[in-house]
Amino acid sequence: SVNPDLASERQTASFSVEKLTALLDGGTEQTQIRRAVVEAIESDPVFSRENQYFQTQNERYESAVRKGVHLQKKMHEMGWTEDGPEYKYIYRALSGDVAFLLHRVFMRSISVLGSDKQIAKWIPLATQHKLIGSYAQTELGHGTYLQGLETTAVFDSATQEFILNTPKISAMKWWPGDMGRSATHTVVFAQLYVHGKCYGIHPFIVQIRSLQDHSLCPGITAGDIGPKMNFEHIDNGYLLLKNVRIPRENMLSKFCEVQADGTYVRQGSEKINYFTMTAVRISLISQEVLIPLMKACTIAIRYSVVRRQSKLKPGEQEAKILDYQTQQEKLLPQLAAAYAFHFINDYLQELFNQGYREIEKKNFDMLPELHALSSGFKAVITQHCTAGVEICLRACGGHGYSLLSGLPSLYTKILASCIYEGENTILLLQTARFLIKCFMAASAGQPVPPSVTYLAAVKHGKCPAKNKLDFLSADIYTEAYQHVAVRLTSSTAAKLQDLIQSGVKKHDAWNQCTVQLVQAAKAHCHYIAVKNFAETVEKLETKAGIQKIMKHLCDLFALHGIFSNTGAFLHDGYTSAAQMDMVTASYLDLLAVIRKDAVPLVDAFDFTDKSLNSALGSYDGQVYQRLYEWAQKSPTNQMSPAYERYLKPLLHNTLSKL
Amino acid sequence: SVNPDLASERQTASFSVEKLTALLDGGTEQTQIRRAVVEAIESDPVFSRENQYFQTQNERYESAVRKGVHLQKKMHEMGWTEDGPEYKYIYRALSGDVAFLLHRVFMRSISVLGSDKQIAKWIPLATQHKLIGSYAQTELGHGTYLQGLETTAVFDSATQEFILNTPKISAMKWWPGDMGRSATHTVVFAQLYVHGKCYGIHPFIVQIRSLQDHSLCPGITAGDIGPKMNFEHIDNGYLLLKNVRIPRENMLSKFCEVQADGTYVRQGSEKINYFTMTAVRISLISQEVLIPLMKACTIAIRYSVVRRQSKLKPGEQEAKILDYQTQQEKLLPQLAAAYAFHFINDYLQELFNQGYREIEKKNFDMLPELHALSSGFKAVITQHCTAGVEICLRACGGHGYSLLSGLPSLYTKILASCIYEGENTILLLQTARFLIKCFMAASAGQPVPPSVTYLAAVKHGKCPAKNKLDFLSADIYTEAYQHVAVRLTSSTAAKLQDLIQSGVKKHDAWNQCTVQLVQAAKAHCHYIAVKNFAETVEKLETKAGIQKIMKHLCDLFALHGIFSNTGAFLHDGYTSAAQMDMVTASYLDLLAVIRKDAVPLVDAFDFTDKSLNSALGSYDGQVYQRLYEWAQKSPTNQMSPAYERYLKPLLHNTLSKL
Repeated sequence: SVNPDLASERQTASFSVEKLTALLDGGTEQTQIRRAVVEAIESDPVFSRENQYFQTQNERYESAVRKGVHLQKKMHEMGWTEDGPEYKYIYRALSGDVAFLLHRVFMRSISVLGSDKQIAKWIPLATQHKLIGSYAQTELGHGTYLQGLETTAVFDSATQEFILNTPKISAMKWWPGDMGRSATHTVVFAQLYVHGKCYGIHPFIVQIRSLQDHSLCPGITAGDIGPKMNFEHIDNGYLLLKNVRIPRENMLSKFCEVQADGTYVRQGSEKINYFTMTAVRISLISQEVLIPLMKACTIAIRYSVVRRQSKLKPGEQEAKILDYQTQQEKLLPQLAAAYAFHFINDYLQELFNQGYREIEKKNFDMLPELHALSSGFKAVITQHCTAGVEICLRACGGHGYSLLSGLPSLYTKILASCIYEGENTILLLQTARFLIKCFMAASAGQPVPPSVTYLAAVKHGKCPAKNKLDFLSADIYTEAYQHVAVRLTSSTAAKLQDLIQSGVKKHDAWNQCTVQLVQAAKAHCHYIAVKNFAETVEKLETKAGIQKIMKHLCDLFALHGIFSNTGAFLHDGYTSAAQMDMVTASYLDLLAVIRKDAVPLVDAFDFTDKSLNSALGSYDGQVYQRLYEWAQKSPTNQMSPAYERYLKPLLHNTLSKL
Repeated sequence: SVNPDLASERQTASFSVEKLTALLDGGTEQTQIRRAVVEAIESDPVFSRENQYFQTQNERYESAVRKGVHLQKKMHEMGWTEDGPEYKYIYRALSGDVAFLLHRVFMRSISVLGSDKQIAKWIPLATQHKLIGSYAQTELGHGTYLQGLETTAVFDSATQEFILNTPKISAMKWWPGDMGRSATHTVVFAQLYVHGKCYGIHPFIVQIRSLQDHSLCPGITAGDIGPKMNFEHIDNGYLLLKNVRIPRENMLSKFCEVQADGTYVRQGSEKINYFTMTAVRISLISQEVLIPLMKACTIAIRYSVVRRQSKLKPGEQEAKILDYQTQQEKLLPQLAAAYAFHFINDYLQELFNQGYREIEKKNFDMLPELHALSSGFKAVITQHCTAGVEICLRACGGHGYSLLSGLPSLYTKILASCIYEGENTILLLQTARFLIKCFMAASAGQPVPPSVTYLAAVKHGKCPAKNKLDFLSADIYTEAYQHVAVRLTSSTAAKLQDLIQSGVKKHDAWNQCTVQLVQAAKAHCHYIAVKNFAETVEKLETKAGIQKIMKHLCDLFALHGIFSNTGAFLHDGYTSAAQMDMVTASYLDLLAVIRKDAVPLVDAFDFTDKSLNSALGSYDGQVYQRLYEWAQKSPTNQMSPAYERYLKPLLHNTLSKL
């Protein structure tokens, strides 16, 4: 039975939830396939996440390994393949709670960086799980700055081997997933030395554990790096190498090879490496970032119509907390952002596919733009969504703070996305470097990639809005975002030039501009996100009901961005104070409008109760019953030795006196 | 041996760290007492936190109980008393990692709400730990809105008892600390019914567990609510009451009493209740909020001078990450905020003591102002510091995400402070209500409390700054903050009146203004914090070295607030765009200045390595060694059954083939 406070929200939906779900999935067929995968996974008890919040790190790891092994069997049973249409839904259905994710990265590294011969040897072994692979790049002392890695691989021409060492403690590999306890092999990134000369970072296949008994190989020290904020199911590991010898053939050699006599040969294009990073950054957005935000919105919004607290009108029943303007202002912009970023993800995917087609034709022209957009959006989306999940958590008060709400684990998981696959500040600075370069080129009349042509058109006009309804026009707000992005890029470019002309060295000047460069990069991405959302809404003309609510969300996304960052729009007078008051009025009006469809809008994400794993966010809204039932299962309700050991002696001297 | 990259930072301190520590402590004597307490606690192995990050919730609870019991013995041994000067340092020295904190709340409730007779009976029992007390207010269905609590206490005149019930699942008590497994008694808040009439919420002493064998008393169902984001050492509990009978004498009756015949008598002033909440909100700031931020700053800043990454200048050594402007911009404003809030805490404490003296003279005039300030600052400081700890965590990259850094547990702990003791949004709206009331009074020429007299002086001038150095004048920026606070309060008051005059009902009008009311309340607190910091700096004239660095921090705190919220200052043209560029320039200049003293500024907080419990933040900066040593102790490096059970069968079919 559905909580009537939740049921009533669904009766007044202004659109078809099922149709919106299909839009999000990319068609009704996709929805069907996804649901079939979810059904198959969730009905299998091995994949249960029922007791997850009660498990220790060791229990989580063991369960993930069990699931990882079982998944192979399941895929075989179901006829799912890695190329099939079901594949992309498996990870979502498992909520990522499975081991051997790095095994796939191991395989991809070999496919991308290995020679045909290496691919022919290793990929079948890996595909059949005759080994377990990992990917050892990050070290204790180096993350994003790959050139600084300290692990060495010295070529020994006498034995035709490489000798690998982590010569200092800071060179120790640290963080690689699946490496702490599971992996038998890994791809190690090390500085290549031949005849005393350093050739920089190269990848090497290294066996780290015996295939007979899983003991560590000679010269290898490895283990688990211990507890983290999340990812308890993953054995992130450390790895020390002491004179570990591997055959010459184990250096992945699609692009660079050390020949028998020690001759170093570079072949092919290394640009593809950028493309791999781009692929990873784009692919993580949907699974690792958008899904957690969508889940958090689902939980917090459902809870906010079930939770009643205090009275809005004297004498009436206590109000649903979603009826308070402040609660709407917390949650609804996050919902709008989830949709905005879903559509920008579609845009990035399309751009990526286009780039891939060009690369297959040996045309690498799109790479810089793709790199800039994927870096910038990885940073902006992970940052925005992480903040959004935290807002959802806090908007649920005390119950949000209980692990049983599901929100803490969503938060601690999404937080990691701000750090891995490129630290966000560094990524934004890469985007900024691209923007400055393009701005200079555009100013000099040179051609620039499509996403930045707007930088050439510096306009000094004013926002033409005359009343608050004008701010519901996509042209009006998109133009305002564009104006801000141009202003921040051009003013920072000017500062940079001024500094250099005044004699400051180039690298110092750059450092002195980085806070503002980050702002420019964010403004650029925000502009593209708003523009893309508006264009997406326009294309929905055949879907009237959905178009209307998507238009509201697009307006909210855009106006929330202005309302939260008024200074950027007011700065040079493009927007006046009176217009800013109109923005505020329209923004607050929109909250009340979207509030009516809030529950249908999260229902459309189509998460099952099992995948939410939340006592607050289930489809039926039976919050209090579920919290109580789940709490009773907690191991903290088993007998504790604390009473006999500590409390009894403390209380003992007064027994029967009270 | 101290890491040379850290040691060099200390050699160039512009001030005496020891003197700054004494200033923070309130005198060298206080520093001595604090250090003696820390020494006594940290040298006692029972209080060790060494393996904390590896422990399960059950282990954490058991350890906290052990510590709680041992603390009684320790205090006796050391001659420490609850009234002594050492007492306030004990909790800090334990990092809060101890049980029975609610026992103190139980005692305070009885002292404040109980009759003399009740105090005489219960306080000696509690003091001697002949019982363990808790405090059961929050329910599954109600937190901040106390009037909505659903637990009932019905007077039965025949037996002279109250019959307590939690009639619905949402009435179940939920969250009370020490109640899940430890407490024998609790203070239950329930709706009092006498002869069918409801008299509202009253407090009752209820025994929940046997003093003989700790079993639950008849009619009682209780247990632990399960895992949370932090506070694993606390047994937050649930409590169901089914026809639980307690004697009439167990209703705490300083203010209200039910006489034998059922006559309800109200006596004394209930205003003191507000005062209790005020006291709690102020007292939590220093221990629960400032200390975590100070610790996070210490860890992140020390790490940022030890961690070298990438090159700032081509050809040189990799740079300390604190030399990057973006890293400075993350961490140094948090450091400035820690100092700003330390001083505002002093201000609030003083105001509170003044209020207390007045109340002892039966003068309650200061209560509304104290309530508004303590509510607003509780919200603003918890919010600001929580965001600050998260920034520190993320600024340490991957290592910050490891529990061993100490940062995740600081974050998950401080996050709770945004929720408990009054949800922040609701508290800010209480402050806003006070502001609106005072603004109306001031506009009508009526007297208002000192902290809000500025609201009367609405000025329409412009910021007089002419160059970036002018923004290092406290008068200039304090006035700007004041202007914004007045503008936000007056414009929201105007909106509220307009709505009401246009026919919107009062409560609807209020709800439609709440997003802006929250902004006004924050601006008010921010203004007071800046003003107070500037005044504190002025008073340091006899301490030249310290005054200078404190002035820099005060400037940074103020300018960071403007830089992060430019729209509020630009809105009505009080600050021009050109002036905002001066703010930005001065702000960025300050970062480079304060960066030089960053390590001495965190050293002055004087945390021991044991209290930081961080592999990144220790005094000697031996980060990588410590991470490796600690990781090796993790239970995840013990043998796992996963290999035999799952991996061996998987890998088995290929043994010896590779």
